[in-house]
Amino acid sequence: MFESAELGHHIDKDTYRQQVPGLREALLDAQFDVLQNREFPVIIVITGFDGAGKGETVNLLNTWMDPRHIVTCAPDKPDAEERDRPPMWRFWQALPPKGKTGIFIDAWYMSAIFDRAYGRIGLAELDQAMDRICRFERMLTDEGALLVKVWLHLSKERQRQRFKALEKNPTTRWRVSDTDWDHYRYYDKILRAAEHALRHTSSAIAPWIVVEGGDAAYRSLTVGRSLLQGLQQRLEAKQESGPPETLPPLLPAIDDIHVLKTLDLSRSLIKTDYEKQLEKYQGRLNLLSRQPGFRDLSVVAVFEGNDAAGKGGCIRRVTGALDARHYRVVPVAAPTDEERAQPYLWRFWRHLPRRGRFAIFDRSWYGRVLVERVEGFCSPMDWMRAYGEINDFEEELVRHRILVVKFWLAISKDEQLIRFEERQTVEFKRFKITDDDWRNREKWDLYEQAVGDMIDRTSSVVAPWTLVEANDKRFARIKVLKTLCKQIEKAL
Amino acid sequence: MFESAELGHHIDKDTYRQQVPGLREALLDAQFDVLQNREFPVIIVITGFDGAGKGETVNLLNTWMDPRHIVTCAPDKPDAEERDRPPMWRFWQALPPKGKTGIFIDAWYMSAIFDRAYGRIGLAELDQAMDRICRFERMLTDEGALLVKVWLHLSKERQRQRFKALEKNPTTRWRVSDTDWDHYRYYDKILRAAEHALRHTSSAIAPWIVVEGGDAAYRSLTVGRSLLQGLQQRLEAKQESGPPETLPPLLPAIDDIHVLKTLDLSRSLIKTDYEKQLEKYQGRLNLLSRQPGFRDLSVVAVFEGNDAAGKGGCIRRVTGALDARHYRVVPVAAPTDEERAQPYLWRFWRHLPRRGRFAIFDRSWYGRVLVERVEGFCSPMDWMRAYGEINDFEEELVRHRILVVKFWLAISKDEQLIRFEERQTVEFKRFKITDDDWRNREKWDLYEQAVGDMIDRTSSVVAPWTLVEANDKRFARIKVLKTLCKQIEKAL
Repeated sequence: MFESAELGHHIDKDTYRQQVPGLREALLDAQFDVLQNREFPVIIVITGFDGAGKGETVNLLNTWMDPRHIVTCAPDKPDAEERDRPPMWRFWQALPPKGKTGIFIDAWYMSAIFDRAYGRIGLAELDQAMDRICRFERMLTDEGALLVKVWLHLSKERQRQRFKALEKNPTTRWRVSDTDWDHYRYYDKILRAAEHALRHTSSAIAPWIVVEGGDAAYRSLTVGRSLLQGLQQRLEAKQESGPPETLPPLLPAIDDIHVLKTLDLSRSLIKTDYEKQLEKYQGRLNLLSRQPGFRDLSVVAVFEGNDAAGKGGCIRRVTGALDARHYRVVPVAAPTDEERAQPYLWRFWRHLPRRGRFAIFDRSWYGRVLVERVEGFCSPMDWMRAYGEINDFEEELVRHRILVVKFWLAISKDEQLIRFEERQTVEFKRFKITDDDWRNREKWDLYEQAVGDMIDRTSSVVAPWTLVEANDKRFARIKVLKTLCKQIEKAL
Repeated sequence: MFESAELGHHIDKDTYRQQVPGLREALLDAQFDVLQNREFPVIIVITGFDGAGKGETVNLLNTWMDPRHIVTCAPDKPDAEERDRPPMWRFWQALPPKGKTGIFIDAWYMSAIFDRAYGRIGLAELDQAMDRICRFERMLTDEGALLVKVWLHLSKERQRQRFKALEKNPTTRWRVSDTDWDHYRYYDKILRAAEHALRHTSSAIAPWIVVEGGDAAYRSLTVGRSLLQGLQQRLEAKQESGPPETLPPLLPAIDDIHVLKTLDLSRSLIKTDYEKQLEKYQGRLNLLSRQPGFRDLSVVAVFEGNDAAGKGGCIRRVTGALDARHYRVVPVAAPTDEERAQPYLWRFWRHLPRRGRFAIFDRSWYGRVLVERVEGFCSPMDWMRAYGEINDFEEELVRHRILVVKFWLAISKDEQLIRFEERQTVEFKRFKITDDDWRNREKWDLYEQAVGDMIDRTSSVVAPWTLVEANDKRFARIKVLKTLCKQIEKAL
């Protein structure tokens, strides 16, 4: 993999000087076109061996292009905000919106490679990490991003020479740290882990570009030209509009058995039982949220359901048991324009809770496979891939000790009609019912199908769906509270 | 101030039970109206003595109203992200957008009150802090926010009883900390500082509501009703549209002397001098940014100027001297919809740099008193008050060791014409010139007037403007780099 990057590539100064102006101009032009059409972000990964010129390359790209539309994300020690969230959170926060460029130094690669080189993880875990990266990058490119990944290479001997040279010069001595020499001693192990990681993550949509880093002129021109090619190809591809996407929709079950139809919607609770149990489970939830162990946990609760199924009422029974300082309710509405300029899941990543907190989503990322699917707000390709992306997302939360509890509140079509009519006559303005509600109701069967597919495809061991029989509000609220308590107890 | 809040107010259970349902419903209705018209945010400050029921009151409001549209901001120890920014940064981050409600426990008050009570600051400094708070709250209400401030009071004796009672009960014992008892011992001093602070910050637009906290029913009903009244009054006021704002525009100077006309725009540099000085000052800037002392400093550089004055070129000469990991260029364009739902300065607060970093603004908060003023995008009232708000903002940055360096790049009307025509003929697409540019040019005199007023009103000792003669690009770039170096040196 690295053979041709150890040959001592070299470009002489004159050639470099001659070629740079044209390259710069073409890069600026391409950057400006990307900025103007605002159709995709550019994500550049620059990683490789220390001393191979990662920082210099990034600075150079910022000089060659217009730095006003580039954001650089450098590997820093994670701060408290970041430690509380899954490791990918900081990268999600730093993603450039459409039209802009983000440069990620070391990006999501080096921590796993070092972990492997230093023996902190096995090969299987490295593979798992690279699998997750593949899926993440696949999501990025599916969302339209142009992804350019550069590995700056340096042979062991060149690395040693480079560090020695830097150390000799008093103005650059500070740049070589003990960590650098540690890495040098582990060169062979890092090389092996890196080769493994790169092979695993070099795909047609995001191939690695391996560049010998020893000679600055060669390195700079190669990286610059690769980036230019990527930009130009992408801009040209944009102009030819491809064939319309087609995809066979999922088939409804050909018998009449459906997961929602297995629910016994007649389940109910009488008032006195309800009040007793409400007190019991709210008290239990309150105590759980104040246990010392809860400080290392966080909870993401998702509420989905038919219109008028009583999501708001359930949420209020949950928050009523908690301290307002420890939860945040996130009502999911139409995306803002900042959110539309990012991958679909971005607007949920930004609301992840810190340790010891609850984030309660009133509707959620499942909108993609429910309303957006049924109403055709996104292409079949988009909602089909959403199942996998959502599973990856939730798995990442769970791996970081974030408990994911998902509720589908189900009511019957008749019950919905009763509630709609009630809402229309009752005077509380907050219960106004919209034309949208009636329109959705006409598509009842399509929604039912979408819900079935959603449950089949996203109810996992780590983040299972809880179906809640919600024709009786009291029964639903108690089931929600009870489930939440049980799952938190299990997690503690 | 607190006399009537030590009388032992009390409401019996029956009255409470009778009154709550109506109050709740009215609060929900009002909250829904606020949410629907999306014209103003509701900002509730709940503070007062420990043990007076701050947390309980906040939880109750979340139960009475719809918690999905309330965000609670509790006093936590600031984390690294927050410590790097001015103290008000975390509150800016937590401001609710229009239509939503934010509850701030202790808000921006208690840290100064405790500082005074514990003798860490003098009375003059407390006054200064309260002055800043007044201006901040004035900005909030000018921006349309409904501000409701509640002080929950408790006499010294009642506080002692309350802590004792909590300590006796095993399930609430954990709620009384050593800090609470510390505060109890300092009760008299806290009382004095609080009284002083409250008097200072109780204004017609944001009066304090002092509520005796000892009796939960009395406290809850009083807070709930006060909030309801605030909401209802505000919603009604919205419906009557007041008289159109009129305000005398600032007069242009009646002689022909103008700060911009004092500039000698013929100043220039020959190429060899330029290259020598560019290397010199870029090198100096680079060294400065790597000094150990720079880790405790951050730099906000603002670039404003006539269209085509060469802001981009200057910015690139600055970033060219820096490591891409240490700066961020913020090009200021039209606000996004998330930004439009917040006070004007919110979108600049969100981009404040961490310690040791540069934030370079390509256009800035001065848009309000330049383009928005001239084009009539905001009312005269809005841009008139912007001068004061901007001065407060910059003062707050400087007080937090953020160096604010502001450049106005000035070119002559003739030079602008030459550059516009050049840009129209040169093929680089990135230099496309828009109709807007030509339109702005027609308003040259109005802009000149606005720039003069801006400099008069916002060039302060702590954050002075640097006027840059920019007819010669080389001269301008060197002056920018030199000024930046000098100011950083002064700050270190």
